[in-house]
Amino acid sequence: MTAVGIDAVEVWTGNLKLDLAETFAEEKGKDPAYFTKGLGLRASSLPDSYEDIVTMGANAAKKLMDRKGLEPDDIGRIDVGTESSFDNSKPISTYIAGCLEQVYDGDFHHANKGERKFACIAGTQSIDDAYNWIRAGRNRGRAALVVATDTALYARDDSGEATQGAGAVAMLIDEDPSLVDLSTDQGYGSADETDFLKPNQQFPSVDGKRSVQVYLARMREALEDYESVAGDVRLDDFIYAPFHTPYPGMVRKAAALAYRHVTRDTAVEDELAESIGRQPRRESFDDDGEYEEAVREYMDALKETEQYQDWYAATVDPTLTISRDVGNWYTGSVHLARVSALKTALEAGRDVAGESMLVASYGSGAQAEIHGEIIQDGWADEIAALNVDEQIAERYDLSWSEYELVHDRHNHEMDSELEEFTTPDAEFVFDGWGRMGERKYTYVE
Amino acid sequence: MTAVGIDAVEVWTGNLKLDLAETFAEEKGKDPAYFTKGLGLRASSLPDSYEDIVTMGANAAKKLMDRKGLEPDDIGRIDVGTESSFDNSKPISTYIAGCLEQVYDGDFHHANKGERKFACIAGTQSIDDAYNWIRAGRNRGRAALVVATDTALYARDDSGEATQGAGAVAMLIDEDPSLVDLSTDQGYGSADETDFLKPNQQFPSVDGKRSVQVYLARMREALEDYESVAGDVRLDDFIYAPFHTPYPGMVRKAAALAYRHVTRDTAVEDELAESIGRQPRRESFDDDGEYEEAVREYMDALKETEQYQDWYAATVDPTLTISRDVGNWYTGSVHLARVSALKTALEAGRDVAGESMLVASYGSGAQAEIHGEIIQDGWADEIAALNVDEQIAERYDLSWSEYELVHDRHNHEMDSELEEFTTPDAEFVFDGWGRMGERKYTYVE
Repeated sequence: MTAVGIDAVEVWTGNLKLDLAETFAEEKGKDPAYFTKGLGLRASSLPDSYEDIVTMGANAAKKLMDRKGLEPDDIGRIDVGTESSFDNSKPISTYIAGCLEQVYDGDFHHANKGERKFACIAGTQSIDDAYNWIRAGRNRGRAALVVATDTALYARDDSGEATQGAGAVAMLIDEDPSLVDLSTDQGYGSADETDFLKPNQQFPSVDGKRSVQVYLARMREALEDYESVAGDVRLDDFIYAPFHTPYPGMVRKAAALAYRHVTRDTAVEDELAESIGRQPRRESFDDDGEYEEAVREYMDALKETEQYQDWYAATVDPTLTISRDVGNWYTGSVHLARVSALKTALEAGRDVAGESMLVASYGSGAQAEIHGEIIQDGWADEIAALNVDEQIAERYDLSWSEYELVHDRHNHEMDSELEEFTTPDAEFVFDGWGRMGERKYTYVE
Repeated sequence: MTAVGIDAVEVWTGNLKLDLAETFAEEKGKDPAYFTKGLGLRASSLPDSYEDIVTMGANAAKKLMDRKGLEPDDIGRIDVGTESSFDNSKPISTYIAGCLEQVYDGDFHHANKGERKFACIAGTQSIDDAYNWIRAGRNRGRAALVVATDTALYARDDSGEATQGAGAVAMLIDEDPSLVDLSTDQGYGSADETDFLKPNQQFPSVDGKRSVQVYLARMREALEDYESVAGDVRLDDFIYAPFHTPYPGMVRKAAALAYRHVTRDTAVEDELAESIGRQPRRESFDDDGEYEEAVREYMDALKETEQYQDWYAATVDPTLTISRDVGNWYTGSVHLARVSALKTALEAGRDVAGESMLVASYGSGAQAEIHGEIIQDGWADEIAALNVDEQIAERYDLSWSEYELVHDRHNHEMDSELEEFTTPDAEFVFDGWGRMGERKYTYVE
């Protein structure tokens, strides 16, 4: 069977930066460590006045098409995953295709365009749809373009304000992929949850505590479902585990839970038992409360062990590097985590071709999905071609008062004009409104 | 290769009716024929105060699951197509799954849930995704539930107000389907268009004239694309041609265009030439204007011919029967057209198993998709099990002042309470708001 997977990836960050440790912490009168250690975030990416989910998505897609030498005819499907859409009917993929048609010969008139919505998991769902489309034999030799793009803004003074972000990840799904090979094995954990939603509103209503619980509960279900099709997951099966990363602190919790699950009834549990005892089993306790307290104690001890810390440092921490500097990109977040891991491997001079990653996506509302990916021979060239560090370094560093103006500018309920802070350079920009209230775009050389 | 397609379908109309010929025409001081002949519509379905896209979708899905004897474990995927969503992050499929979990043992925790948005074509796109998921070998023996659900409301006094509608179509996508078999052949016509959109608003901005042009242009592209993979379409290949039906008058235009395209350079064109001449060819005219004028004249003459009228009466008119009484259901519309055609066949006592249909979907913004379907042996039992006529007959017939209250009730910008006109009976109902602004639902015995 021909391999199908992610052939290439490109990243586009919003052109502005809000420094959490400096600017945000100072304004809020908080210890910078609350952000840098607690949440695990140093800064957020934010969109300049001429940026939105269309410009960022189209810019990432153009970088990808240029680098891979693609023409519109090579693309049979364009799907966008987003939870920041500004139209209840017309999909963002049509706007992005319209942008790209401004700069390429040919058009995407025979490509199936779509948009998926499920909080932060819709980018992964779009990859799955593209994979299935190729496996079903409907692609006519063409690849699929999947774009995960979001402006993850919260209401001012919401507790999520420190975890904001803005950016897009464009991915090419194709046969014989250069980056990672996907398989049909997947695990799902999914339930009707009210942890994070946007009922007829742009900025989310969030129950932060519930959201953490739901993230962990759905992940556990997804892992169990994955193991039911792919067999038991073992610690040494996967060199990296990219998780959806609303903020690195959330992933720290999820990683510990996954470690406990995966090591249960293994030699690792036996070895750890000498220092921290065996994992609590429900049947050994009289009630749920006692059991949960024992689990908390075990987890606290586990996180202090050398074994766990070594595993976390090798397998999870490398997935968080980019996230620390850009915040939450919603649909793009888990795909940034994949890039982050492979970038770490490249910088360390490791050859990871043939190795596997366990990828754990999540969307509030709520659903987790877990699958494995095999890193392909072309991975190092693909990752070496990215300029993520440069993009992050070149962002304009906002003062607090500038940040307030930027937030207003992107608030759909305000009609706020704002001079741009950066000069667009070889990119698509928002260019004003059309006669039916539609957003219009142009390419700036 | 195992057949994959639509195994079963169920329909749920909004429980209210606005009579266009009587109530609407009288209020607007218009000739009822403007609606019944021009648009081709007699009435609209509208949602009662306790109905919305979740209740209608869940009710259609429950009917389908009950009739087919399905349990939650039999479903591996729930996808909703809608352009009436009320949450920018949490997908409607999670609400529908939550409803169904209230009345069935078991749950959908290992089903992949999603939501697709692309105006009226998202229901068809969701069927495609489900088909591909099965073809890719990812379904583990389970079927997919696809729900197309919309409340197609326009702003008061908008020209679209006469074409409103509300309802849901639930479909089961499975191996060895009882209703229709799908194939991998599809044709797409897709472009970045501004004919109909909802920029941060519930009710659409519509350019009616442009929308007709775009519908026809994208359909022609899709037909050409379909022929490039499936071979030339001939008149007698298909016994029915269900189109997306915003109103039957639109389909009349599209059908004539399709007929002209399909009969070009065939014996049908030769035969028609004796009475109305041959089809105009662009190369025979000095400019576009002259050519287009000649095409208009040919089309007007074509529609008067017995050949065309016989074909239209047999192949297209049967697809419009339900639409005339319920209006536009957006994503559900083309799937109602399919039901309508098969219902006509059943009532005429025809055996159409093994025959093919050409299905033409469309979404503004804009994209058309065309594919063929082969009617399966179980079709008559499936269609006989529906109670569409009963649902239509039992709707409460609104007076004009009642209609105005219903429209306000469903306007997201108004906080309007309204006593229900009908009594919910064995169905899911909207039951008020939760603490985070979420809509809540309950099942009424």
